[in-house]
Amino acid sequence: MHEAPNIVGFKEFALASRLSDALDGLTVFVDRDTAMAAIAESAIGAARGARDFIYVTVSTGLGGTIVSGGRMLRGTTNTAGEIGHFPVAFQLDTTRDAAADLPRCGCGSYGCAESFAAGRNLADAYGVADAAEVFTAWARGDPRATAIVIRAERALANLAVGLVNMLNPALIVVGGSIADNQPGHVLEPMRRAIAERAFRAPASAVRVVPAALGGDVGMLGAVFAARERLSGRGEWFL
Amino acid sequence: MHEAPNIVGFKEFALASRLSDALDGLTVFVDRDTAMAAIAESAIGAARGARDFIYVTVSTGLGGTIVSGGRMLRGTTNTAGEIGHFPVAFQLDTTRDAAADLPRCGCGSYGCAESFAAGRNLADAYGVADAAEVFTAWARGDPRATAIVIRAERALANLAVGLVNMLNPALIVVGGSIADNQPGHVLEPMRRAIAERAFRAPASAVRVVPAALGGDVGMLGAVFAARERLSGRGEWFL
Repeated sequence: MHEAPNIVGFKEFALASRLSDALDGLTVFVDRDTAMAAIAESAIGAARGARDFIYVTVSTGLGGTIVSGGRMLRGTTNTAGEIGHFPVAFQLDTTRDAAADLPRCGCGSYGCAESFAAGRNLADAYGVADAAEVFTAWARGDPRATAIVIRAERALANLAVGLVNMLNPALIVVGGSIADNQPGHVLEPMRRAIAERAFRAPASAVRVVPAALGGDVGMLGAVFAARERLSGRGEWFL
Repeated sequence: MHEAPNIVGFKEFALASRLSDALDGLTVFVDRDTAMAAIAESAIGAARGARDFIYVTVSTGLGGTIVSGGRMLRGTTNTAGEIGHFPVAFQLDTTRDAAADLPRCGCGSYGCAESFAAGRNLADAYGVADAAEVFTAWARGDPRATAIVIRAERALANLAVGLVNMLNPALIVVGGSIADNQPGHVLEPMRRAIAERAFRAPASAVRVVPAALGGDVGMLGAVFAARERLSGRGEWFL
């Protein structure tokens, strides 16, 4: 593991060998939770049969995995898929700093979709422990919560339009606790933005659907992935 | 062709059959200029040997092509690669409309990287015919040109960080007239933003380099692509 913005202490941490040592030499594979989730949703969940899809999780953080032409995108050093850290905002007033008024992201940057829309960031922005409180405050018309939720929806809208224009998926599968509990603030703004603002051809080719497998999706995918790897297939394909 | 925001009149236009008819039935393939450019840069240009690279053109418009794991991303209906239409900004003030203060993009949306940083958009924002005039005005300290150029650089910075975090390329090849003539306003802000704001692992794995093949890059790539297609290989791989 190179780094994990939402877990303290995991910087350049040799997780596989440490775990293997602790498990008497058992073979350990390490991969991203969202990659495992995408495999599970593809095999037995909402993305069955799709060769071009994006798995998005809006939970504590905002992450994802991209599958294009039946292949999971890995990138040159296996870190591809961090869609939550695509910056979707900057300060428009050029007399001020580019980061002015923007929440600082856990990754150290600013403008990231995660910094606006993920659970931890929503809660931090409002000064509470749980993002659910922000949506409750929004529901009673609290102005500060309203502003936070509107920004989160704008960030998700930009992200959704960008994913559709850039990657032309057939399916965007959206999971994670925030998406599960607040589809009206996650899936709906994504769908609306795609319909209103993305190119017509990719917009009419894509559906935004909820994930099917719930909280165990990562573990389910890990079973498939470990079996594939042990059978000698080092990479995952549809 | 479904649509071409920067060419009037090309909406749902059957370009290949119209051209073929006009050329006595000659076989005609239609593809995006940036896809052809990426093939040429990969075969004989700046991306030789790279299996994970992104070709970016900053010219009249802002476009690109993504190659990941040795494959060009096509998407489910062959429109993938429109990186210039990833929205990288929104109005932060939630008492105002999401599009307030943002330039309208040729695609009908707002916030797109193209709407800030492409040549036509720079010129339109300043009210001149040629983006070169904006940079000349910037050089003499004109405040309005300065604001336009700073916004363009912020948009390119967000785009570069997002591409690196999301796709983990080994190389970003940047061509097009604006990039060629103003590398200090295109490649440099991209490099700076990646170094300062992208995840460390993908940031240290990527180089941002100028395109090698100049203005004929699309035609060169079209020769390779047509030969591949005629030989029966319908898709392009490294």
